[in-house]
Amino acid sequence: MPAEFPADSVGLVKPQCLPVNQPLTLASGRVLESYDLVYETYGQLNAERSNAILICHALSGDAHAAGYHSQDDKKPGWWNNYIGPGKPIDTNRFYVVSPNNIGGCGGSTGPTSTNPASGKPFGPDFPHLRVRDWVESQRILMDHLNIQQWAAIVGGSLGGMQVMRWSLEYPDAMRHCVVIASSMHLTAQNIAFNETARQAIMSDNDFHDGHYYEKAVVPRLGLSLARMIGHLTYLSDNAMEEKFGRELSSGSFRLGQDSDLEFQVASYLKYQGEKFSTSFDANTYILMTRALDYFDLAREYGGDPVKAFSHANAAFLVISFSTDWRFSPQRSQDITNALIAAGKSVVYTDIESDFGHDAFLLKNPRYEKVFQNYMQHVHQELQAGE
Amino acid sequence: MPAEFPADSVGLVKPQCLPVNQPLTLASGRVLESYDLVYETYGQLNAERSNAILICHALSGDAHAAGYHSQDDKKPGWWNNYIGPGKPIDTNRFYVVSPNNIGGCGGSTGPTSTNPASGKPFGPDFPHLRVRDWVESQRILMDHLNIQQWAAIVGGSLGGMQVMRWSLEYPDAMRHCVVIASSMHLTAQNIAFNETARQAIMSDNDFHDGHYYEKAVVPRLGLSLARMIGHLTYLSDNAMEEKFGRELSSGSFRLGQDSDLEFQVASYLKYQGEKFSTSFDANTYILMTRALDYFDLAREYGGDPVKAFSHANAAFLVISFSTDWRFSPQRSQDITNALIAAGKSVVYTDIESDFGHDAFLLKNPRYEKVFQNYMQHVHQELQAGE
Repeated sequence: MPAEFPADSVGLVKPQCLPVNQPLTLASGRVLESYDLVYETYGQLNAERSNAILICHALSGDAHAAGYHSQDDKKPGWWNNYIGPGKPIDTNRFYVVSPNNIGGCGGSTGPTSTNPASGKPFGPDFPHLRVRDWVESQRILMDHLNIQQWAAIVGGSLGGMQVMRWSLEYPDAMRHCVVIASSMHLTAQNIAFNETARQAIMSDNDFHDGHYYEKAVVPRLGLSLARMIGHLTYLSDNAMEEKFGRELSSGSFRLGQDSDLEFQVASYLKYQGEKFSTSFDANTYILMTRALDYFDLAREYGGDPVKAFSHANAAFLVISFSTDWRFSPQRSQDITNALIAAGKSVVYTDIESDFGHDAFLLKNPRYEKVFQNYMQHVHQELQAGE
Repeated sequence: MPAEFPADSVGLVKPQCLPVNQPLTLASGRVLESYDLVYETYGQLNAERSNAILICHALSGDAHAAGYHSQDDKKPGWWNNYIGPGKPIDTNRFYVVSPNNIGGCGGSTGPTSTNPASGKPFGPDFPHLRVRDWVESQRILMDHLNIQQWAAIVGGSLGGMQVMRWSLEYPDAMRHCVVIASSMHLTAQNIAFNETARQAIMSDNDFHDGHYYEKAVVPRLGLSLARMIGHLTYLSDNAMEEKFGRELSSGSFRLGQDSDLEFQVASYLKYQGEKFSTSFDANTYILMTRALDYFDLAREYGGDPVKAFSHANAAFLVISFSTDWRFSPQRSQDITNALIAAGKSVVYTDIESDFGHDAFLLKNPRYEKVFQNYMQHVHQELQAGE
């Protein structure tokens, strides 16, 4: 319980809710008649309304990207390392908008919300979503906030996919795109991991084909397993080796006993799984991983990413992490190469890190510096009124 | 149904069973009073009884390494690519002995066998095993077959661990060791994958803490998931990409529909999981993955692999595969470096392959050639009576 919040923190923040009563026609053809969009904002919108930054969250993210919800809050928002006074996304300079995506479980309308048609939770009947559906709903929020153009749209992983889709759907709606640890589409291995995680949830006896709310249970074991599988792909082999090695958390290798040995890495993963399973919604997990699988930036451009990016007008910063094997540096280089071939402005950097895909959330001096420099340039451009 | 078997096949083979009534004190201190060892043999033992090769199997292997069990058999044994007339392990020259390990589910005593103390299946009460317990039981089989020295002991993955343990426990009981796609111990990431697979099995409602036999059920969904997780680590990212890419097996990406899309890679993995779950035993899977986790070649040598290998007298062939990320080429190089530092004879080669860990089972001209050359040398040595 901090007596006061750190000086580089945005401090106490409060989520807001935008109820949207305008129907949203989804990529699947289904229509969401009305929905809530929960979002947080940090910093001040300037008089020209030109300093707004949109944050797009990843699989398990939500609107709470920075600051604290209460004085007792033990943990700040999920990207607090990078959003705050003096941080790369400097709230002394920028007005930051961080929505929870529809289909999520962080307040915006999703599977846990009441389906007006039935009076029961949507559950598995919540429509499948594609990344473009999030772009469309974020666009509604943009209009509501009376923002004509984002100074930048920023996101890591699944968030980076939203950034790229924005750049093609609304080329003039942002000046800059920051795409971190992302990919233009999933590989077969990525899809296979997601499918295995979904099968873990769906195999749980408490899943009830997604109608678990009505049974007052949650598929805790399945969701916990899904998270363990996911978590494994976020961490690098090296990081796990350095953090845990072959250390035991219980039992002993001495001969003459047969009790269960448990390795620290196993205890850690189980703990992570269990913690997640009590705070996240299983139907949302399925929906979000499906959106990841379906995403293919260039599908409607004949599979040609150069043709796709030829529609973009923004300038890009692309960042990857050396030990990320979920979305490897090669995936970011593919994005960069397509942008270059399409004649767009792009800065690309690969950051040395031991922490795999997770690195995009963690403190890292080089990453901070590159990100900060780029955002300073975004700010200078605004001041110059270019 | 082949009218006749291929000429380079060992043809029709029949498993044999050795009932052992001599108690086996396990590394854990527990005692297996009696047990059955099922094994197959191919080729002829020579007059000097010097041409015997021991095959050590991996996680899901069994005694059926080569040939066919019946005229209708659709598939030959698991290492048929490498054992047979004219193949690297040439049955015209060698007498091949392939046991099923205790704790397995291929006929040798394991969790599915009746516990004489209770009259019920052992189930989860089957003692935990270490790799050295397999070495000890294989040693009993060696004595039974009246073999003084193996010409070579050969194994991939978990099988390679048995080969290395043999070389330290009985340094004069073999002339050569062939260690393929193996490691001196698992990494934290390896352990984490195994733990996730075990949790998948143990989370299944039909697991009943391992006492599922009595309930006449099997934890099919959990075992299927465990296999999916394992299988993911056997395949390389590249191999999956080339084989499946982002091809769909059902549904369509066209807008205007919301039916379940399924990727081919997902269908394939689910099929593999389901197939495995009807043929393998869940308690055995748990036991085998634990033995993998526990294995640490140098633990009793102060963690020093050079000190460990100083006890070996055999000559070694060590093979790795370029895209194997379960036991990466680095793990085989660690083995090789320790052998060199210990002043032992070792030949090491890394084979270019797209097929990840699975490559050790698959046909590959370069792998075949290296393996064949080495085994020819083993044979020439025997003929020279060195």
